[in-house]
Amino acid sequence: MSRGAERRAREDARGALGRVTAESRRVFRDGLTLQSGQRLPCVDVAFERYGTINAARDNVILVCHALSGGAHAAGWHTGASKPGWWDLMIGPGKPFDTDRYCVMCSNVLGSCYGTTGPASIDPATGRPYGSRFPTVTVGDMVAVQKALIDDLGVTQLAAVAGGSMGGMQALQWAVAYPDAVRAVVALATTHRHSPQQIAFDEIARRAVMADANWRGGDYYDGARPSDGLAVARMVGHVTYLSDCGMERKFGRRRRGGHERTSAAPFEVESYLDHQGRSFVDRFDANSLVVLSRALDLFDLTEGRASLADAFAASRAAFLLLSFSSDWLYPPHQLDTVGEALRQAGRPVTCETLPSDDGHDAFLLEHDAQAPIVRAFLTSAAAPRGFHATTAPYLPDNPLGPISEEEPSRCSLPLARPAGPLVPSASCSLPSS
Amino acid sequence: MSRGAERRAREDARGALGRVTAESRRVFRDGLTLQSGQRLPCVDVAFERYGTINAARDNVILVCHALSGGAHAAGWHTGASKPGWWDLMIGPGKPFDTDRYCVMCSNVLGSCYGTTGPASIDPATGRPYGSRFPTVTVGDMVAVQKALIDDLGVTQLAAVAGGSMGGMQALQWAVAYPDAVRAVVALATTHRHSPQQIAFDEIARRAVMADANWRGGDYYDGARPSDGLAVARMVGHVTYLSDCGMERKFGRRRRGGHERTSAAPFEVESYLDHQGRSFVDRFDANSLVVLSRALDLFDLTEGRASLADAFAASRAAFLLLSFSSDWLYPPHQLDTVGEALRQAGRPVTCETLPSDDGHDAFLLEHDAQAPIVRAFLTSAAAPRGFHATTAPYLPDNPLGPISEEEPSRCSLPLARPAGPLVPSASCSLPSS
Repeated sequence: MSRGAERRAREDARGALGRVTAESRRVFRDGLTLQSGQRLPCVDVAFERYGTINAARDNVILVCHALSGGAHAAGWHTGASKPGWWDLMIGPGKPFDTDRYCVMCSNVLGSCYGTTGPASIDPATGRPYGSRFPTVTVGDMVAVQKALIDDLGVTQLAAVAGGSMGGMQALQWAVAYPDAVRAVVALATTHRHSPQQIAFDEIARRAVMADANWRGGDYYDGARPSDGLAVARMVGHVTYLSDCGMERKFGRRRRGGHERTSAAPFEVESYLDHQGRSFVDRFDANSLVVLSRALDLFDLTEGRASLADAFAASRAAFLLLSFSSDWLYPPHQLDTVGEALRQAGRPVTCETLPSDDGHDAFLLEHDAQAPIVRAFLTSAAAPRGFHATTAPYLPDNPLGPISEEEPSRCSLPLARPAGPLVPSASCSLPSS
Repeated sequence: MSRGAERRAREDARGALGRVTAESRRVFRDGLTLQSGQRLPCVDVAFERYGTINAARDNVILVCHALSGGAHAAGWHTGASKPGWWDLMIGPGKPFDTDRYCVMCSNVLGSCYGTTGPASIDPATGRPYGSRFPTVTVGDMVAVQKALIDDLGVTQLAAVAGGSMGGMQALQWAVAYPDAVRAVVALATTHRHSPQQIAFDEIARRAVMADANWRGGDYYDGARPSDGLAVARMVGHVTYLSDCGMERKFGRRRRGGHERTSAAPFEVESYLDHQGRSFVDRFDANSLVVLSRALDLFDLTEGRASLADAFAASRAAFLLLSFSSDWLYPPHQLDTVGEALRQAGRPVTCETLPSDDGHDAFLLEHDAQAPIVRAFLTSAAAPRGFHATTAPYLPDNPLGPISEEEPSRCSLPLARPAGPLVPSASCSLPSS
């Protein structure tokens, strides 16, 4: 059975979320001052919810996406050819168990999938922000997520989880809002970018900016910097794979199966070409520049004596998973985080899982990762005072069992007036 | 003492070559049929020589350069701010000892430093070859080198040596001309590119081709594709360094020494920017495309049952050195070559040297590398029947001792009429 078929069989056995839809909500309606000191007049956030929130509103898990991801973490959009990016991990009976938790994912600030970003309309000009979009940080992204869950009446997350840039957000949550999260799952990530990681990001940015259509980022009224963005994505993809994984996947095979026809491109070249081309249809070059810069600026030691200090106020338990062949976020980086957490007296599980899937492993390595995440959440994400070993956790589920026909959604009694669902990415200027 | 100062002190202690100059020679005057089946009407080769050839013409060592290198391997050109690329290793008393050997280096076919390449004038059109320059292989490069040493009356090389693409040429020599080389020194290289290596090359090519000035490679009458070429070089530089080496060299420092001024670029970004900018002033984008393609096509197993078969006819001894932090040409690749050589019954020394200089180590790691290369050449590069342990090797040196004032050059009695020194890169069409 192929790897894909195996995965589908596993999903069928466990059930799946079925159709899901996106929501949007406006936060910081009076403006948001970013860490850079720059301001945004307001922020719209796109998000999805799977599973049902309980009456105590203490069973929400926030899942955070990586650089090119969005709020669509699981289930299927109508007409889509594939499910959300972490569908393997989120759903009824899956590690992020929607029979037990209400799992949420929101698109990050600066992205291009519904949350305010460079392609959004700047109310000051009536045109896309483009080059005028401010510098954002992982701290800013998490501040927006915090405003969203505040708006939804949730004061403490059962867990926050993510890989890569999503893992940075998870760590940032524990540092910035230490009382607001019980468990942190950070995969294939780091507490700060190394110069090599900065270098790859800078190459991606420079590839975009070398495109004749870049025009300083103000290209929305003309041709997009697609060739440059494709090169940037090709760089990304090589860093997401491993040497041994590429050997297994491509070897030196030529396109069309010809082993040694020098006229035919190598399969790995065709793969990169395809990845580059498909990316430019779905991602905005300015968002790549803004988000990669946020990755590079992320540094939990900034302004602190040590990394352990950053976690001193945290009340969370931590699960840190790295992958043996991930050379973009090598395991020693999370080992450093694990050591700091131990110094800070936090409960932490830190493991490196064997994999030849490189950085992509956090999206793919289900069999090794799933039982560890499941066990961790069972013990760490439960409300304070709850002990999984003595009483099974039975969340209040007013909607009843999930069905494939009806997408599962949080049924959330809002604690305060909800903002309107915002159909466009535009927002009005604050009166100031 | 700084690293640079240490190196200069070592050089001073050992003596140096002083001023050197380039030569040029035309080979394949009736045309060269390349491995692709395409033809070049003739080939001009730029080369340099250091030290004196002996009467038996059996003390020539050919040193092969890497992708962006040239024939200027050692000594100083008039007015230059730095010496040749392997000056650390070549000179009187150095591992490639010009008191003993005549060390030669020629610019490879397809490059832009004097040997026929895409920027050379195509006699069929009177304009640069550009997009019409044919596909070249490492085999073609070595065929040109063989024609050059034939032209100089040398039938057997004492050794052929190089790192990276230069190491591929060294291995190719042993396979293509098994009787013509006594010793092979291959550093930081492989017998064939992995898909990851191909991927980085393809990204570099695509970065060049994404430049609006690329024009399919026919840009010589206008602006050069400099922005794309700079991005390509930035990709190269990250692969030449190691994660740990970059951490040591750059950390997260900001330009100007400001640790945490988010407005200032990271030092690693400034470094890459500088490397990209300086490269476009000295290298031709078409040569990058042609030579990186040659790297990708190189595969000593092609058309053979095994890698050991490739070396079956070789009579050489081999020294293979890899470097622990070289992730572009990871040590396991040369271990594979070493194993094949043992299977083929060849004497081989295969070592991985500790270094945090990444792929660049073969250019920088003098202290670990030099004694091994020196000892290997002493025992393996000597003429057949010569035993270094019983009789010191005293080459015929009609020019007397090397002085700093007078550049050392081979004094070569030519075995057959020499081709003219060709001042321009153009050559005439064969009469056909």
